[in-house]
Amino acid sequence: MKTILTFDIGGTNIRAGLFSEESIKPLYTKKIKTSGQNRSPLENILFLIEEILTQYPTLAAISMAVPGSVDNKNGVVIKAPNVGGWKNIPLRQIVQEKFGFVPFIENDASMAAYGEWKHGAGRNHSYILYITISTGVGGAVIDNGHLLTGFRGLGTEKGHMTIVDDGPLCSCGKRGHLEALASGPAIAAYVRQKMAEGFPTMLPSDPAPTAETIAKAAKQGDALSIDAFHRAGHYLGVGFANYLHLFNPSCIILGGGVSFSGDLLYQPFYESLKEHVMSEEYLVGLEINYAQLGDEAGLIGAYQWSLDNL
Amino acid sequence: MKTILTFDIGGTNIRAGLFSEESIKPLYTKKIKTSGQNRSPLENILFLIEEILTQYPTLAAISMAVPGSVDNKNGVVIKAPNVGGWKNIPLRQIVQEKFGFVPFIENDASMAAYGEWKHGAGRNHSYILYITISTGVGGAVIDNGHLLTGFRGLGTEKGHMTIVDDGPLCSCGKRGHLEALASGPAIAAYVRQKMAEGFPTMLPSDPAPTAETIAKAAKQGDALSIDAFHRAGHYLGVGFANYLHLFNPSCIILGGGVSFSGDLLYQPFYESLKEHVMSEEYLVGLEINYAQLGDEAGLIGAYQWSLDNL
Repeated sequence: MKTILTFDIGGTNIRAGLFSEESIKPLYTKKIKTSGQNRSPLENILFLIEEILTQYPTLAAISMAVPGSVDNKNGVVIKAPNVGGWKNIPLRQIVQEKFGFVPFIENDASMAAYGEWKHGAGRNHSYILYITISTGVGGAVIDNGHLLTGFRGLGTEKGHMTIVDDGPLCSCGKRGHLEALASGPAIAAYVRQKMAEGFPTMLPSDPAPTAETIAKAAKQGDALSIDAFHRAGHYLGVGFANYLHLFNPSCIILGGGVSFSGDLLYQPFYESLKEHVMSEEYLVGLEINYAQLGDEAGLIGAYQWSLDNL
Repeated sequence: MKTILTFDIGGTNIRAGLFSEESIKPLYTKKIKTSGQNRSPLENILFLIEEILTQYPTLAAISMAVPGSVDNKNGVVIKAPNVGGWKNIPLRQIVQEKFGFVPFIENDASMAAYGEWKHGAGRNHSYILYITISTGVGGAVIDNGHLLTGFRGLGTEKGHMTIVDDGPLCSCGKRGHLEALASGPAIAAYVRQKMAEGFPTMLPSDPAPTAETIAKAAKQGDALSIDAFHRAGHYLGVGFANYLHLFNPSCIILGGGVSFSGDLLYQPFYESLKEHVMSEEYLVGLEINYAQLGDEAGLIGAYQWSLDNL
């Protein structure tokens, strides 16, 4: 039986999944710390491949999802700041030279979107906008079954879209991006700033509030916390109206921890979306779903991607 | 010899072009006023088809580029405000019932982009961002040879992207869109507002300045006019940085009258683009070209599109 080895490489953990060609249920999974065992992220990946190869020598393909800018034509990770500061890592070449496989190297949001499309919240759709809202805001788009990547694979920075010219500082160093206004850290930064200005809240200042503790406080009626989610929802509505005008999907899939804040975020988001969309036609037939594959989305997507492109 | 009849339907003129299957040089062209001869735009289109059919009875296809939101699956023009206020016009069905042809109905910016890709400024590229800046800001994207349309063909409103939340009013009724900040009318509105505030300028207030007269004054050193193009260039840089992050093209094609203002607009635009792009990687290998097919782009694109999709 031929098998496909997939990796979802994250800033904290590296997840590996081994699939047969018949099922999206992995035969074997493993999760290790990205920089654990006194090894670099790259050493850990190579170590895992070696270990799994000794147990399952009949690999057909290796497929990797990487959190950053990936030149998918050449298999080079141009920038993955969360993975040991990776910059211009010729990952395909390294794996190929060591193991003889030419691995697929793709952006993680693209692979999660691909997985959700084929096996999750996007089944029965061909026009999908997948957006993940957590520490960052990322995503991918599928148009008539075609996964957009861009010339060098860099067209995946969906959250780095200015919607407030000269607005708050973003993690990338630029200003006013959707990520700087509606990600988990953006929600927390807003609350901390308001607390520093003396706004009353039930939240303690130490430990500093996070999107999670703010969501809890909001559900208990804390006005500042509710306001923070309303503000994030407002900006998400502005940003998603942009996405709808640019991509006109039939299905939006929301992933990432912040998305799962329920009505607290969803209601102001959807109100704002309706307000900012230039025509109701964009909402006709539009499904908005939560992601269904959870932490497995990247692995399942990387698996399906390699199957479809072998 | 089989022929393809194409239409580029505009708010002012309807252009028709008849092509053989062998060449992008039309055998025959005709331009009439969209609402001329006391006929409605639709009547004029049907009249033109009839007239051309009597001369060239061996048509293989009819292909139409429409300035608005087009449901290209069903051939329905959802909204084309400039064409006699068209709303939900089943153009495909009407033409089919009258002439027996099933015409291609597509958005005009998409067809112009397709033409420029196959025969103009985008040859040798597979990842193209085509943006036209004139009365409005519109455009289309080609990703790895795939023309993006969106679920109902509405994903072409590239200029209706908020970059200044709650910014100036746009033609569509929403606020802060790129079109409201950098189109011809946006440039003129800014100058008129500054004149009303008493800013000195060589421009007369009657007739009211237009993007064209402002460009002329700027080239003669008029400070307010130069400022107006700097401002538009700034916002174009912000907007195009968004496009690069979302689409990562290898080729930008600039069309439309405002684009052709030369360095007056291009310099502040490119400065702003460099400033707002989150990584120089987006500029690596990026060509920025002016459109080459002029007024013929839509016809040539509609011709090539029907050839490729027959």
